[in-house]
Amino acid sequence: MVNIAVLGYGVVGSGVVEVIKKNRHSIGTRAGEEIKVKKVLDIRDFTDCPDAELMTKDAEEVFKDDSISILVETIGGTKFAYDFTRRALSSGKSVVTSNKELVATHGPELLKMARDNNVSYLFEASVGGGIPIVRPLNQCLAANEIIGIAGILNGTTNYILTSMRKEGKDFGEALKDAQEKGYAEADPSSDIDGVDACRKIAILSSISYNEFVDANRIYTEGIREITLEDMQYAKEMDSKIKLLAISRRYGENIFARVTPVIVNNSGQLANVEGVFNAIIVRGNAIGDAMFYGRGAGKLPTASAVVADVIDIVKHVESNSNNVWKIMNENNIVNIDETESEFFVRLKVKNHEGAEKLVKSLIGDVEKVVLQMDFAKDEYAFKTDVITEKSFKGFIKKLNQSDVIEKVANTIRFFEE
Amino acid sequence: MVNIAVLGYGVVGSGVVEVIKKNRHSIGTRAGEEIKVKKVLDIRDFTDCPDAELMTKDAEEVFKDDSISILVETIGGTKFAYDFTRRALSSGKSVVTSNKELVATHGPELLKMARDNNVSYLFEASVGGGIPIVRPLNQCLAANEIIGIAGILNGTTNYILTSMRKEGKDFGEALKDAQEKGYAEADPSSDIDGVDACRKIAILSSISYNEFVDANRIYTEGIREITLEDMQYAKEMDSKIKLLAISRRYGENIFARVTPVIVNNSGQLANVEGVFNAIIVRGNAIGDAMFYGRGAGKLPTASAVVADVIDIVKHVESNSNNVWKIMNENNIVNIDETESEFFVRLKVKNHEGAEKLVKSLIGDVEKVVLQMDFAKDEYAFKTDVITEKSFKGFIKKLNQSDVIEKVANTIRFFEE
Repeated sequence: MVNIAVLGYGVVGSGVVEVIKKNRHSIGTRAGEEIKVKKVLDIRDFTDCPDAELMTKDAEEVFKDDSISILVETIGGTKFAYDFTRRALSSGKSVVTSNKELVATHGPELLKMARDNNVSYLFEASVGGGIPIVRPLNQCLAANEIIGIAGILNGTTNYILTSMRKEGKDFGEALKDAQEKGYAEADPSSDIDGVDACRKIAILSSISYNEFVDANRIYTEGIREITLEDMQYAKEMDSKIKLLAISRRYGENIFARVTPVIVNNSGQLANVEGVFNAIIVRGNAIGDAMFYGRGAGKLPTASAVVADVIDIVKHVESNSNNVWKIMNENNIVNIDETESEFFVRLKVKNHEGAEKLVKSLIGDVEKVVLQMDFAKDEYAFKTDVITEKSFKGFIKKLNQSDVIEKVANTIRFFEE
Repeated sequence: MVNIAVLGYGVVGSGVVEVIKKNRHSIGTRAGEEIKVKKVLDIRDFTDCPDAELMTKDAEEVFKDDSISILVETIGGTKFAYDFTRRALSSGKSVVTSNKELVATHGPELLKMARDNNVSYLFEASVGGGIPIVRPLNQCLAANEIIGIAGILNGTTNYILTSMRKEGKDFGEALKDAQEKGYAEADPSSDIDGVDACRKIAILSSISYNEFVDANRIYTEGIREITLEDMQYAKEMDSKIKLLAISRRYGENIFARVTPVIVNNSGQLANVEGVFNAIIVRGNAIGDAMFYGRGAGKLPTASAVVADVIDIVKHVESNSNNVWKIMNENNIVNIDETESEFFVRLKVKNHEGAEKLVKSLIGDVEKVVLQMDFAKDEYAFKTDVITEKSFKGFIKKLNQSDVIEKVANTIRFFEE
């Protein structure tokens, strides 16, 4: 029998206890021996808690118990979680976590600490909730050089964008609805500003390229600026607007970004709706593979945590962590040097003048015409592939022009 | 350094040698040491072969070489492959294979032999080509009880169905096109009659339920009977026709079948087109997760083989095979006892009489009307959920009736 302790009895932590109880038999078969939750550490009081006999507020009860070999950290954040994880690893206990912030911030140090102490630090649940993605990248696709990743990594924003499009709610209403349904937090900024997706693509990139990609260096935009009008244009182009995290390897260099993009309906990612997540991985042997499922939620996420625990139990003698090298930060390509096609919506004072101006600045563009009232004073178009730097210059000139009232929005196209 | 040998220098075998050469550096990093192909066994002569110096026709050169610890079996079939695999496992060499027929036929014996000899028998590439599915089921979803699986597991038939629908080719033309493009073999029966998909769902079911599911006991239909007319009806119902392998756990019992089904366009599987495969796994904690990618092809399949090799190298001390129990065959539910909704197309002599007859036999049905010439003498409808046994009785009575010329086709609906 293997004893584990769960640190933090929130949604995921209590889910871990539940999954281990619920599937005790099959988990035992898979792991080769029984897995038992011996302690749950949380400073809060829980009344009527089904796991009352396991609860403790005293961290020493966990750390000083030599019969506990694996800790599940579902505290979140980088304060207590960081201290506890370091203490556990350095004292020879393996740690499993769903804490993306901690992995994205201190991953290289914690992975190295795990390796030095011959224990494991695993974090399947930190990306994609229940979707298996970390282990497939580490193991199943190990024979590939990973060339790129593209994913819908945040269920909250995907839910909001889906309900805007399907139900005609504007961003504010859709956010409120998501909060009422428990899909968005009271302070939703980490989700809607793309921070959560940014941490996740940082983790996936670090695994894929075996080199730490710092979340702070990833260009990130959220979905606050996306309007129903933008969605009408996307529909006209047989497309949808999605918040996508992408990452690419260019030789020695890496690029990653999180932005709303226009995805053609023929692509797999366009059909990923609501709270679902999906990740497309491109390898130099396998081509494209996609992993799809619930990106959050108590039991899906808990099942990913428990899968890591089972893995440690099965491979107790062979710690399989890779360590992420920290490379020169010049390896991270600046967004200004990358290229995209852009969708541009202008509110114009003078249609003919706007068309002429755009043509004089960047040549021919593909016009998108919408037969709707709001679009009457708009000139909307798709650019050719252009560098971000040139595009910024172009927008600056548009803003200075007399024939244009304002640039209503600009959105990148997703190029598969 | 770990030495391996490749048995069979066909598409997959030569792909394995290529992938190991191509990604030598990253494979070495992932595995922790270099992996080298020391011998390739094949009885054929290869002129101008880039791997000429590795080739041998003498199996003893492989088996008697103690420096070779892992064999890659890509021979196919159950004759030489079976003998070689047994010999390897019993002499302490691990075996990695893409041979679904062998795994589906002798899986329980070979897995037990591997465990008894403390080596591994891995077969990620036997299902879904390059798509990671075997390892995710065994490891990533290990915390779940798997309730069901549904998948497009055969790229040839999916290519044929896709080109019938998109290009209006009939079955024969689409098959010929697939053969010319190398997606179908000269003798295509194993693919188009569902045998290949049947073996694959047998393997996935055995892994999921940890109990051998015999391919011979799986009800299997192919796609020879699917016509362009059927596809028109499916389109009218906002759906597509796909060859789906499904498997469900009901308490102690298991059911599996391979049949063409009508899949609604809102479902993820409807958007899996051409040679792509996809597998939806339903677990009691994760809900639905989908795995999507190229289900065949030289490098994708080879990359799955090499991932297994890497896994063995990393975990050399802890063989992680599960053994499949062979249960009472009464555990396999007979198709007669299962339920579906059915689409039925009748060629009728008398519309009114046909409608009345159907209503008298099974009550109200949902009529599907097509405004096309061929449909003028047809009465097409969707039944409620009905057992297969009752449905067979119903069809028998229709065939005996005077008002009906013939039953043109019947196709099950896929219920997600």
